[in-house]
Amino acid sequence: MTEYTGALAVAVAYHQAWTAKDLDKAMEYIAEGVVLESPGARLEGIERYRAFLGGFLPNVLGYDMLAALGDERTAVLVYRLRTALVEGSLPTVECFSVADGTIIQNVLVFDRTPYEAARAARAE
Amino acid sequence: MTEYTGALAVAVAYHQAWTAKDLDKAMEYIAEGVVLESPGARLEGIERYRAFLGGFLPNVLGYDMLAALGDERTAVLVYRLRTALVEGSLPTVECFSVADGTIIQNVLVFDRTPYEAARAARAE
Repeated sequence: MTEYTGALAVAVAYHQAWTAKDLDKAMEYIAEGVVLESPGARLEGIERYRAFLGGFLPNVLGYDMLAALGDERTAVLVYRLRTALVEGSLPTVECFSVADGTIIQNVLVFDRTPYEAARAARAE
Repeated sequence: MTEYTGALAVAVAYHQAWTAKDLDKAMEYIAEGVVLESPGARLEGIERYRAFLGGFLPNVLGYDMLAALGDERTAVLVYRLRTALVEGSLPTVECFSVADGTIIQNVLVFDRTPYEAARAARAE
């Protein structure tokens, strides 16, 4: 198994926890004043982050990692995420800023279009 | 100035060329059989890649880099891209696979939603 160091160790541990749907474990890596940027949304603070992540977790089916890279303060994970919301997988990126062992910022990047199309189809 | 090595050196040189709208220079870093995955599209081969990139370049205004990370074979750039298409900037990610000094795969990740909203508003 790969040994990760610096920001990447924190990012990978966080990612393993949330993709295993272990919300409590995942939140151990999130800083009190975390900032999350997600397509069309920006939220601040650990309670809002927990609500956001907790709402999404039940949909997770799995992922295939494309890249896991980092240095002391920054880590990026690129993966194909499989969810119950859309068929197949969708490229998804998390770009983390880490300080003192916890995530202080997460810039989440993905295309909302397939999720919205699937939601519209379900609503028909 | 930061010295980049491995896949990241190729990725950064490519990125500096295309964001400076130097299409010929950018294409020097692209492999003949390149595969591009972009939201909602997948294309193969250097000619199609050139057409795709050449069509987008006139819209570029600038960017702010959030993360530039890599190892020998993989590099990821995360940046806020400013274009003439949408107000402000939009988080954009390129995840490169590099072999023998050229890019053989680029997984491009961004949210299409703001671009489509802006296009719909222009069409009104």
